[in-house]
Formats: sequence, C-alpha cells, structure tokens
Amino acid sequence: MVHKKQLKVAVIGGGSSYTPELVEGLIKRRHELPIKDLYLVDVESGREKLEIVGALAKRMVEKAGADIRIHLTLDRAEAIRDADFVTTQLRVGQLEARGWDERIPLKYNCIGQETTGAGGFAKALRTIPVILDICKEMEELAPNAFLLNFTNPAGIVTQAALKYSKIKTIGLCNLPIGLKMQIAEFYEVDVSKVDIEMIGINHLNWTTRIIVDGEDVSEAFLLKAAGAKGLTMKNISDLEWDGQFLQSLGALPCSYHRYYYMKDAMLAEQLVDLQTEGTRADVVKKVELELFELYKDPSLSIKPPQLEQRGGAYYSEVAVNLMTSIYNNKKDIQTVNVRNNGIIPFLPDDASVEVNSIIDADGAHPIQVTKQVGPEIRGLMQLVKAYEELTVEAAVHGNLKAALQALTIHPLVGNADTAQLILNDIMEQNKPFLPQFQR
Amino acid sequence: MVHKKQLKVAVIGGGSSYTPELVEGLIKRRHELPIKDLYLVDVESGREKLEIVGALAKRMVEKAGADIRIHLTLDRAEAIRDADFVTTQLRVGQLEARGWDERIPLKYNCIGQETTGAGGFAKALRTIPVILDICKEMEELAPNAFLLNFTNPAGIVTQAALKYSKIKTIGLCNLPIGLKMQIAEFYEVDVSKVDIEMIGINHLNWTTRIIVDGEDVSEAFLLKAAGAKGLTMKNISDLEWDGQFLQSLGALPCSYHRYYYMKDAMLAEQLVDLQTEGTRADVVKKVELELFELYKDPSLSIKPPQLEQRGGAYYSEVAVNLMTSIYNNKKDIQTVNVRNNGIIPFLPDDASVEVNSIIDADGAHPIQVTKQVGPEIRGLMQLVKAYEELTVEAAVHGNLKAALQALTIHPLVGNADTAQLILNDIMEQNKPFLPQFQR
Amino acid sequence: MVHKKQLKVAVIGGGSSYTPELVEGLIKRRHELPIKDLYLVDVESGREKLEIVGALAKRMVEKAGADIRIHLTLDRAEAIRDADFVTTQLRVGQLEARGWDERIPLKYNCIGQETTGAGGFAKALRTIPVILDICKEMEELAPNAFLLNFTNPAGIVTQAALKYSKIKTIGLCNLPIGLKMQIAEFYEVDVSKVDIEMIGINHLNWTTRIIVDGEDVSEAFLLKAAGAKGLTMKNISDLEWDGQFLQSLGALPCSYHRYYYMKDAMLAEQLVDLQTEGTRADVVKKVELELFELYKDPSLSIKPPQLEQRGGAYYSEVAVNLMTSIYNNKKDIQTVNVRNNGIIPFLPDDASVEVNSIIDADGAHPIQVTKQVGPEIRGLMQLVKAYEELTVEAAVHGNLKAALQALTIHPLVGNADTAQLILNDIMEQNKPFLPQFQR
Amino acid sequence: MVHKKQLKVAVIGGGSSYTPELVEGLIKRRHELPIKDLYLVDVESGREKLEIVGALAKRMVEKAGADIRIHLTLDRAEAIRDADFVTTQLRVGQLEARGWDERIPLKYNCIGQETTGAGGFAKALRTIPVILDICKEMEELAPNAFLLNFTNPAGIVTQAALKYSKIKTIGLCNLPIGLKMQIAEFYEVDVSKVDIEMIGINHLNWTTRIIVDGEDVSEAFLLKAAGAKGLTMKNISDLEWDGQFLQSLGALPCSYHRYYYMKDAMLAEQLVDLQTEGTRADVVKKVELELFELYKDPSLSIKPPQLEQRGGAYYSEVAVNLMTSIYNNKKDIQTVNVRNNGIIPFLPDDASVEVNSIIDADGAHPIQVTKQVGPEIRGLMQLVKAYEELTVEAAVHGNLKAALQALTIHPLVGNADTAQLILNDIMEQNKPFLPQFQR
Ligand SMILES: [Mn+2]
Ligand SMILES: [Mn+2]
Ligand SMILES: [Mn+2]
Ligand SMILES: [Mn+2]
Repeated sequence: MVHKKQLKVAVIGGGSSYTPELVEGLIKRRHELPIKDLYLVDVESGREKLEIVGALAKRMVEKAGADIRIHLTLDRAEAIRDADFVTTQLRVGQLEARGWDERIPLKYNCIGQETTGAGGFAKALRTIPVILDICKEMEELAPNAFLLNFTNPAGIVTQAALKYSKIKTIGLCNLPIGLKMQIAEFYEVDVSKVDIEMIGINHLNWTTRIIVDGEDVSEAFLLKAAGAKGLTMKNISDLEWDGQFLQSLGALPCSYHRYYYMKDAMLAEQLVDLQTEGTRADVVKKVELELFELYKDPSLSIKPPQLEQRGGAYYSEVAVNLMTSIYNNKKDIQTVNVRNNGIIPFLPDDASVEVNSIIDADGAHPIQVTKQVGPEIRGLMQLVKAYEELTVEAAVHGNLKAALQALTIHPLVGNADTAQLILNDIMEQNKPFLPQFQR
Repeated sequence: MVHKKQLKVAVIGGGSSYTPELVEGLIKRRHELPIKDLYLVDVESGREKLEIVGALAKRMVEKAGADIRIHLTLDRAEAIRDADFVTTQLRVGQLEARGWDERIPLKYNCIGQETTGAGGFAKALRTIPVILDICKEMEELAPNAFLLNFTNPAGIVTQAALKYSKIKTIGLCNLPIGLKMQIAEFYEVDVSKVDIEMIGINHLNWTTRIIVDGEDVSEAFLLKAAGAKGLTMKNISDLEWDGQFLQSLGALPCSYHRYYYMKDAMLAEQLVDLQTEGTRADVVKKVELELFELYKDPSLSIKPPQLEQRGGAYYSEVAVNLMTSIYNNKKDIQTVNVRNNGIIPFLPDDASVEVNSIIDADGAHPIQVTKQVGPEIRGLMQLVKAYEELTVEAAVHGNLKAALQALTIHPLVGNADTAQLILNDIMEQNKPFLPQFQR
Repeated sequence: MVHKKQLKVAVIGGGSSYTPELVEGLIKRRHELPIKDLYLVDVESGREKLEIVGALAKRMVEKAGADIRIHLTLDRAEAIRDADFVTTQLRVGQLEARGWDERIPLKYNCIGQETTGAGGFAKALRTIPVILDICKEMEELAPNAFLLNFTNPAGIVTQAALKYSKIKTIGLCNLPIGLKMQIAEFYEVDVSKVDIEMIGINHLNWTTRIIVDGEDVSEAFLLKAAGAKGLTMKNISDLEWDGQFLQSLGALPCSYHRYYYMKDAMLAEQLVDLQTEGTRADVVKKVELELFELYKDPSLSIKPPQLEQRGGAYYSEVAVNLMTSIYNNKKDIQTVNVRNNGIIPFLPDDASVEVNSIIDADGAHPIQVTKQVGPEIRGLMQLVKAYEELTVEAAVHGNLKAALQALTIHPLVGNADTAQLILNDIMEQNKPFLPQFQR
Repeated sequence: MVHKKQLKVAVIGGGSSYTPELVEGLIKRRHELPIKDLYLVDVESGREKLEIVGALAKRMVEKAGADIRIHLTLDRAEAIRDADFVTTQLRVGQLEARGWDERIPLKYNCIGQETTGAGGFAKALRTIPVILDICKEMEELAPNAFLLNFTNPAGIVTQAALKYSKIKTIGLCNLPIGLKMQIAEFYEVDVSKVDIEMIGINHLNWTTRIIVDGEDVSEAFLLKAAGAKGLTMKNISDLEWDGQFLQSLGALPCSYHRYYYMKDAMLAEQLVDLQTEGTRADVVKKVELELFELYKDPSLSIKPPQLEQRGGAYYSEVAVNLMTSIYNNKKDIQTVNVRNNGIIPFLPDDASVEVNSIIDADGAHPIQVTKQVGPEIRGLMQLVKAYEELTVEAAVHGNLKAALQALTIHPLVGNADTAQLILNDIMEQNKPFLPQFQR
C-alpha cells in the first residue's frame, strides 16, 4: 500500500453520530494519509441519519479545503469495492436493541451492559453474522483491504472475523489510548511521553507497566489510582478502586473490570438507574437526538464540541493512527486486537487478544509482554475467553448448546438456570436479528 | 517395594471416626497387601478418640485373625519412621473449624462449604502447613514412602505437597469410585464392568466417557442423569440436573458442581439449613458423637453399619485399592490427583489434576484423555485452578495479597469487597491455626 | 467390539512369507480372540505366493482344529468389507524395490536402509499412497475397523494415515517386544516380569526405564548393554555400544540408532557387504525362495522353524497381543505408534510417536512418560520427526520441494547437493510407483 | 537511563583490533549517545595491544573533538563499576586457541570453525566461565547495566548469561545488519528502506521476509540470491546457493548455513586451505599484525580503512545502534539474541533466539514472527539448539557427559566415536582454560 496515491476508505454504519469525529481526524492527518474517497454507507433504516451526517461531513471537508470526496450510499458493495480500509461502526438493531441488551439481564439480577455479560452476548449474536457477511464481500471486492473493526463486543467480533475469514482484520477500542491520555494528564506530560503495556482481551485488559518519560512508575501509579476519579470511560460508573485491592492485583484493571470486581455494587447502581433515568441506551438516545439536531444546521461545518459528551473519546484518533501507521509502514506501537498465536501463552492460538503491537504496512504484530501475569489475572482472562469462544461458536453456527454454556460460565451470570432464562428472553426478543438460529 | 514382606502404614489423624472403615479394608485385602504394622497417630487433643477407635481396631483385627499389629501413638515421627505408606485423614481445628468455614461465607451470602469456595480456602490455609510439615518429616524418616492424601481440599493440599516437597504424593477422593458404583447400580452390572474417563481437578471434575461392559453409553447416561436422584455424595444436596443443561455440557458434572452451576439454589438451601439444623458441621458432630458411643462398646469388633451414614463411602476402598496396586505393581487404572505435566494441556504443568492414571510400583501415571474438553469445561477449570494456585501461595508463604486475589476470583465469591470482608473474618477466626501469617 | 462373536480379519499383503507366523499366533490365542474369517489378500503379481502360503495356512488351521476360515483373494474390497481388523504387511515394489532403496544412497556414500535415511524415504513415497487408498476403502466398507499397520517405515506411514484418514490406525513394530524378550533372557525371568518405558518415534526410540520384577535396573542395564551382543534386530549389524557413550546418554538406544550414532562404521560395513553378499534385499530374496520352497511341501502344517531366521521375530506376537487386548478391553500396556497429542511435549500434536499405551476396546491411549528426556534425545528426535513430516507431505501431495528438504535435513544425508542427486535417482528408479509426482 | 547525562561504557577485551571501529561509531553518534567515560579493559597478556589501540583511540577522540574520556586498565572491576553498558569482545586463549578450534575437528574430517561445530563448542567451553564471572561482577558493581555480548559463539554464550545471571544481557551479531546492507546494495536503496524478518538462533537463522521500500520482495530475492556472490560474511567461503534448493527452502539461509547445507564442499575447501594458507586463525594473525603496525603510527587518528578487511563489518554499527536505542527509548526494531519465552514456540523458553525485537529503555522485546516456519527449518534449529543447551550445561558444570552428547548430536560431527575423539583432543589441548572440568 505504501506509495499508493489515492486511498479509498469505506465506513460501514456511516450514518453514526460518531462520523464527524472520524472525518475531523481524517482531515487533520490528510498530509500523512492521502484519502481520496470516503464512502459512508448505511442501511435503509438509517438513510435519514446518513444524509444528515453526510451533509455535515461534506461541509467539514469543504471548509478545511481538503481534497477528500465524500460518497453517501446504501450500496455496501459499491463502498467496499477496491477499498483500502473498511471500518465498521454499525449497530445491528440500533439503540433499541441496545436497550434490550441492558434490560433483559437486569430482570434476573445480572449486569446489563452492551459489551460484556449477557448484554454483550446478545449483541455478539446479532453482530457477528453481519460482520462475517462484510468479510465475505471484502474477500470478493477488496481482498487486500484491512478491516478495522470498532463494532462491539469488539474482541468477540474480531475473533469471529479472524477465525472465519481471511481478511486482514484488526479490532479497535479507545480504552488503551484513553488510559494513556489520562496518565499524561496525571503526570502533566505530553501523551508521547507515556508508554503503557497492556495485556488481556478487549474490555478486560490489565495494564502491567506504565512508563512516563522513560521512568517506570507502575507501582507508584497504582497508589495514585486507588480512590482516583477519572480513570474510567464516560459510559462506566466511576466507582473508586480500593488501594489494598490494587496492590494485591499488582496491575491496573480497565474500566470494564468494575463489572467483575465490583459486580454487586455496579448491579445495585444499574437497578437504581433503571428506575430513574433508564438504561444507558435511553440516555444515549436523547444525546443522539440532540446531536442530529445540531448536525442539521447548515452553518455547522466543524465537529460540534457536544459530540465529546457522547462517550467515544479518541475514537477517531485510534482509527486514524492505525491507518496512518499502516499506510506509512511506521512500525510504531499501538494496542489493538489481533490473533493471539501464543503471545499470551495461556490462551488459545486463535483467540483475539488486546496487546501492544508493532504497526507496519503488513498490519499489527504483537510484541512479547515484558512480564507474564500471575494466576489472579490469568484465571479470569481464561474464563472470559472461554465464554467468548462459545459465543463465537453460537453466533456463527446458531449453536444453542454453546449459547447456553456461554451464558452459564460467564462470571456476570454464573447459574445454569438463570442462563437458560436469559437465553430464552434474548432469543425471543432478538428473533428478527438472529436468522442463524432459525435453521 | 515389590516382594517386601512387612509393610508399615502410618495413618495421620488415626483417631478419626473413619478409621474402622480403613481397618476393615486392610483386613479384607491382607492376602494381597501384607501389612505388618498399622500406626494410628493423632494429636494430644484427639487422644481420647484415638484410644476408643484404636481399641476397636485391635478388636477388629483380632476377630478377623489378621496378622496386623495396631499401634496407637501421639509421636508422629515414630509412626512415620520407615513407613511404606502414610495416609492423612487429619482435620486441623477439628469440626469446630469446619463450622467456621461453613458459617463465615454465609454471612456474606456466599456458599459455605468445607472444600470449595471461601470455606475450602480457609481449610487450605490451616491444613497446608501441617501437611508440608509431615512431608518434611517423611523426607527425613521415610523418604521413599508414598503420601496418600485424603485431607481436603485434597486437590489444593496435594498441589502444595507436590510443589514444595519431593515426597511421592497422591491425592485421593472417593468421588470417582462413588460414581462408578452408582453407574454400576443403574446398569445392574458389577462395578468391574464400568469404565469412566474423568478429567478435571479435585471436586471439580467432569466425566466425559462412560463405558459399561465395553459399550460407550456416555450420551445415553446423560439423558438418564437428568432429574435422577442419587448421583451425588451423601454430604451434598441432591438437586436435580436439568436435561437441556447436561446435553449442552456434553459431560457429567460431579456432585460439587452444584455449588457452581446451581449456586443460587444451593445458597438458598444452605441459608434455610442454617436456620434449622445448622451447618453440615453441626450435623456431623452429632453423628460422630453417636459413632464414638458405638465404638466404645467392647463387644463391637466389626465396622458398625451406622458408619456408612457418615458420608465417606468407599473411602477405605480407595485407599486400599491404591496401596494394593502400588505394592503389587498392578498397572490398573484409578482416578487420582497427580501433577499435571501436560496431561491437561491448558493447565499449568505444576497443577494437581484428577485424572485416570495407571498405578504401578512407581506410583500414578496419567493416561492421555480420549477427547479434549471444550471451552465450557476448560474455562471454569482454569479459573478455579488459578484460585487454587493463589491459595497454595497464600498458605505456604502467608501471602495476604495472594489470599485476597484468590477469594476475589473464586466464582463462589466474585466481588473484591466481599472477598476482603470474608478474608478479614477468616484471619480473625483462624488466627491460632495460621502461624504463617503472623510473621 | 466386545462380545462380538465372529471376528473378521483382513491381511493386506497376505502372500508374505511372514503369514505363517501370524496364523500360528491366531491359532494359539483363538480362545481369547475368536476369529471366524481370515482374509489373505494380495495383488496379481503376488498371486503365486499367496496360493502357496494360503494353502499352508489352511493346513495349519486344520491341523490345530481351529475354527478359522481362511480366504484367499485378490479382491481387496471383499477382504476389507465389515472387517474388524485390517493388518498391512504389504511391500510396494516387492524386494526389488527394497534393493533400490538400499543401493541408491550407497552410491553417494549415504546409509542405504529400507526404513530410515534415504531408503526409508523412498519406501515411504511408494507406500503412503497405497495405505491411504486402503484407508479410504476402509472408510467406506469397514469404518469402525482398526488398521494395524506394520508396513515400514511404520512411523511415517502411520502418521500419514492418522493425518489424512479417520480410520483408527495403530502402528506396530516388533522392536519393543524384542527388547523386552532380550532383557528377560539377560535376567533369566519370564517376560511378564519385565516393564520398559520407551519414548521416541518408530525405529528411533530410547528406553529410559527398565524394571525387572518390580526393581528399577535402568542404570545397571546400561552397564551390561555396553559391549553386549544380541541387543539388536536380526537385520541390523550387531556393533557394540560404547560404555561411556551409553552412560552419557542415560538411556538405551534402539537397534536402528546404530545408523545414527555409528553412522560411519555402519556405512563402511554396508559398503563392504555390497561388494560381497550384496544388500540385505539380496539376502532376504534368497531366504524367501527357500521359505516358499518349504511352504510348498503339502506335509508341512506348522510354521517352519526356518522362518525365525527371517528377521521378523515376535511379529505375530505383537499383532495378536494388540488384537486380543482391543477385543477384550484388556487395558494392558503395549508400546505402539499413535498420534502424539502432547504426550511428547516437544513434538507436534499430529506426529506419530512410539510410546507405552493402554490398550482397550477403544484403541491405544498413551501414558504420560515418567521422566522427560533431555536435549541429547530431544534434539535428534525433533530433527528426524521434521524429516518425517516433510516426507509425509512429499508422499501425499507429490511435493518435490518438501522431498528435497526432507532428504537435505536427514542426518543420514545432510548435504543439499547429495540430497538432490539421491532424489533424482529415487524419482527416476521408482517412477512407476510414484504417480503422485506425475501430476 | 533516559536523561542520564554521563554514560559509562566498559569494553572487555578492549585491546582488540576491532576497538577503533567501535570508537569511530561512538564518536559519530555522540550527540545521541553522550558517553563520558569509555573504559578499555584487557588481561595482562594483552597489555601491549591495549596500549597501542588505546593510544589510537585517544588520538581519534581528540581529533574529533569529542568529549569522551578513554581509560585503559587491567582492572576489570574498575571498568565495570557503575557502568551503563558493558560490551564483551574478548577472546579466551587468543588467536592461538582459535587455531586449535579450527584444526582439531579437521583431524577427524569434521568442519573446523570457531563459532559452530566442534570448534565453536570448544570456544564455548573456554568462554562461558569468563562471561559468567563478568556477570557476577556486574551483579555486584553495576547491577542495572546492560551486557552487550559480542563474544562468540554469541548465541550460546548469551544463553548461559541469561540462564545463570540476572544481568540484562543482549547477544549481538553483525550478520543481520550485514544482510540488510547487502539487500540495500542489490536494490540500490538506502538501508533504512529495507526491512527483514529473521528467525532462528545465532549463526543459524533464516530470513523469511524481505521488504524493500514497503514491498514484499521475499520470493523475488530468493531467485536473485541463487548463484549470487557477496551474500556472505568476509570470513566464510562464498559458495553459491543452488536455485532449486533456495526455492524449496522458501527462506534465505545465513552465511553460516553453508557449513550445514554444503558441509562436504566446505570441508573439502577447509582441508585444501589447511595445506596452503593454513586456517582462518593463521590468516587473521597476519592481518592483526599488520593492523597493529598501522595502529602504532602516532600520525594515525582515524580508523584505518584496512580494518574493514578484518571481517567484522558493521560491528560498531550494531553496538552503537543498540546503545543509542536503549538510551533514547527509541522503540525501533533490531535483530538481536534474547531469551525465547515462546516467541519461537518450538524451542525451549530459556533458549536464546535471534529475532526481530523492539529496543527500548528496558532492553529488547521480541516481536511475534509473521509466518511460522515449516519443518525444514524447525528440525535443524531444534537439533542445533539441543546441542547448544548441552554445551551450556557442559561449560557451566564441567559436565563431560553433556559434552560428549553435545558433540555427538551436532550435525557437523554426528558420530559418537568421532565425538569422543574430538572431545579428548579438546580437553587435552584446552586444559589451562577449562578449570570447570578439573574438579
Ligand atoms: Mn471499546
Ligand atoms: Mn473428596
Ligand atoms: Mn519395525
Ligand atoms: Mn556473529
């Protein structure tokens, strides 16, 4: 791809409210990443949003004087054909389905979250067939393109794509870059001075080393992190980590770990929220409505600052960083989701893992971790990865047995009878989106 | 050891109510296993029981006309010196401590059980230092003897002995033989016609193949097992397995799996019991009192049938089978706890695992499993083994960090704050038995 | 298979001079192994031999009063249909081809041997397609039968069958039982008193433990083995092992190891033999002529003692032992060639390995080795296994690149240019037997 | 180390003729790598050379106006104390011992080479105890310093240091950078445009991917490499690679591979050379004499161009690149020798391997290889690594059994009796340098 003069990028789910973020990023980096054609593609039901956000994108490009052509289309094949990068930010079943994912588990006193636990499981069942369909289309129309997958549960979806397709797929999350930014703020240094070593799987990774300006501050930072505010994602409750617990863990858990290590407290909070403001889907729906109202304004030709409230901070940063490093054969380090192949020796070779990787023209190459983690981290990672394997199997083959076992062993469910009840509800509610189980 | 004419066996915790069962077994097999000296050793606080049960043992031997000399002693070294087999059936802190193990977790709505969960954890902390002390004494006084460890949590205790001592240690449980007996009853065949393949760790193993009279009945048996009564140990509530669940699992869980797969129902039952009959320790205390009353009767010279209500069915069978096969270099198959060394490829090499093994003069040699298990079994096994590793580390080195992480990741605890509370209570209550944490 | 009343056995290459040995074995064990139908099948060019040896077999059965029906046929499908066991003792290209295997390498100063080195390589290329064809036929006509493969190079052929077919295949060699017999003679005990632990691959395995009458004599035996005569197969020169070398190895090499550890001396001997008596093929041709003359004698109705000079001692023992243990679900230990699956952790999972295994109705289940071998054994085993993998790839797919690399890395070739020259000769000479390379 | 203002470097074997090369490199990069103190240390017998080369070094520094203080000393502790980097370019037994290494194997028709085969083995026995002694001194006097080991056999020596010391050791060779330079010349691009992926162990590695200016030219280059001159080190005969052989290998072998793949031809050449110009040691002795004559010239204050004939091209480049990247936390990619830890999954974890690594302030972190190699590469690498393990064991513990096995299995020896003869000669000849075997 190096030296190619005209890049084509296809954004599946291009009508998303996040798109202006991505467009802004592409504009900023256009001197390093010469994109000629940006295809925003969406489904029929998203046509209106696509047109609104597409019009804004065009105004942004024009105002910036960037030589990027924005294409709006419902024809996915047209968008994919000969693309260099395909990114996915689609949401099967829209925010309504997210609401189901958050509410069904809560009926049974289980965490309701769209990327982990029973909610993430349901989302995986809906999403994986669509992503594999995109992969298939890419194999035909753009076999050498990279698939940059943002769609959650990103680790599981990426694992399915890596296992069932030959397309070069990299799974992305804004959590690693977010943590680097937070550490940079803590230490009041530029983010380029911060190196972190993450090991784990998407939304369940541990930061085992933190280097600031060449100095290893890992232990010191754990002391700071206990009780600290701000070390979390916008969409996750900011419960404080206990100091003794962090010391005993010897690594920094990620935001989503609260659902595991503080399961009961998080559940209690979700149950209260449910009675008051509703689930996160309800909140996001309102935010999105407001955003699209803003986007409609023909005088708006930059990314509106309100978008930053939406929760996807640095999303554009992540995508554009990755494309730029691949295009320029940069060989820098980014934390992404790739096929394991032994880099985490206690997980299966075909697992997707989220680890520091060298990014070059060929994609992402994991770097050996500096210190192997102990049983306190290993055990949980193995269990959740086993759940993920079962979920991929269930989603791809419509395998109900695997589905029941996936939910049963997930730490956020953990009872066979509860798993069966939740599974019944998921199947019932998501029926239109789960053709693989109708066979 | 083959051809040796005079065997010496030391039973640590010889004052246990189980001893008559063992003595009966040794008498029955004396033509295959020529034991000359049987040392029953106990601690000062168990002197009275030792004398009662020892007197009964002597009467049993005499009545049978067996040439076995029974020795009663409080001097452990005397018992161990030059022994061929050392068996452990000791209970650090007696039934009173068992009561703590069962009650403390229940305070925090967690399963209270003496071998698994937070209860098993506490028992491991108390027991491992004592077992390692026995190992050390054996290294000096009987370096070639086998240690047959029955003391629970047998898997964790065995792992500690295998890791921190060179003594040839084999961990035992009556659950495998119990299942074979139950299957034999179901099919109305002699137990010699039943082969089972178990894979897992102590009190968390799965039966993946069942052969009756040369025919593979694995799938058929899963259908029978759903809803069946009787497929459990005496000390575990006989909740029925759901048919669909068993089918999706594709293997037969063990009795103790109920604490995992039916966690909430088991917890509810324990909480009710606590209000009515007390915990299992309370029940056992009464049974033991009655047994020792029986044992005192000088006219009793056989194992009283009431002992079978006690819960340790086949315990003698297991111990005597193992000693006989070692002594006679039999090369038959028994399911025991041994060092993994790759036989379960997804567990650490130094883990103890419970698998089918060839028993010869050299000890136990695991047999390769016929079919590797899937993620539904693998994930849970890995997590609980990780807990076990942390528990061994905590118990051996008085490592509080490992202790907190062990409880945090255990599926029967699963919250960091609950783990901390339970740990505090355990440390407080068990203080006299936990010298390793006083340093 | 247990309890089945009428067993059918098919012997591919039934016209071999070895057949009377097998028939004798089946007659002796008929009370344990109730074979009803024994099919001797051969190819057109072997029709005469088949008739001679078949007639003898019938006389043997009749004389013994055994209820076994002997069938002679050129129709392989008829023989295989519904068989319980299929054994292979075929030789593609007959002894003439063996002569090529022995002579071609010698032209280039490389060991010429029919099972190892360049000779074994050529034999594998000829044989594997035929064996896979048999497997395919079995998949159709006798999918549950066991394939007992004696055809050399047995390890490579077995690996191909295990990798490219679902037929239950076990590879056999008389070397393990031969060693047990020799040890029994040394110690003047019955062979049932001898246990050995072998680890390795066919014709390259090491005996790491020797137990006689329950006592570990491993080290003592190494001292005896140095300089001893008789510790070899009939067909391998009886060069003495050096004592210091055996001590440094810490294990007993097999007969075929002479080609590796004593490469130059063995080569020198082969070159002398070539000038005098010819190669082993020439010798065997004469022996066979004499044997078939004997077989023709209508008054002969037992296995003639001269057969024992032929080199296949205990061949019948091995085959019959295996069938008997499978049929009777015996669960005894035999040393056979099976899929590795981690039992030798430093070889690929799909490698065939020759190790102690439990034999039951389901086949062969490897037992974990007692002590892992060191680099002195590991390195050589890995290299030769790599050669074997390449050979299987070459033989199955007609892959010339793999063929050249196989010969290049083999320790008995070891130069790229020599490898190329030998390969050219092999391809030229064996053309009619290597259709896979004509595509 | 980042931001540290005054670096101290100790060069063990500082009297080597290579030193001016290193000094030149340090001068050139002084703006990136602010070395304050450069200690050249040598043994008493090297005092004269040290003084000559040290004087030249001082003139070079002065002429360049660099602020580097050159220290000459025979006191190793003084040199090591508080050093940041320690590099080793020592030669135990000087060129005379190299002569033995080259001549002894040739007596037995085996390759005589100072880094591989029996010659490399002897050099390892002499060198490892000295390096471990340096490590021990570093543990006391400079525990955080990096040991950059150039001393051959660099892979084996590095493995010993990694296994028996906690010092951060990185093994170096100029072969990887040399290949990049050669490829850059072939393609007439700057070396910065060339990326190669190497996998293997020191002096036995394969280049599996070659990227020039972002384009994968791996296959094309193999075609070019066949028959090409120049793809070798100065000290290795430039025999041409055969095209078909390279195609079948699918990777580019390194220069030293000629000793394996072209063993007989290389041996023939060595035997001819022995009769004419002597061994390489003889040639080098003359070159060195000439060099030191040049060095003595007080008007010389730059590295003389004749040094480039010496064979250590790019040696300085390699050392200075590594120090610079560590000092500046550069995170660039270099091919160095590190502990395996699973990056080559079929070698032991504690093996040293030579692979692409990220270099940062913490040292070298291997990058996952892009494509795993096949059996043609794997087998040979495993065998030679097994030899290396045995050699480390022999060298560290004076273990004669391991020594005999090491030589026996080495592909360049390969007969047990030859191994014994060579070993005897090595022990006899090197006696003064092998105290570990005198115990
Ligand atoms: Mn994410
Ligand atoms: Mn038990
Ligand atoms: Mn054989
Ligand atoms: Mn080198």
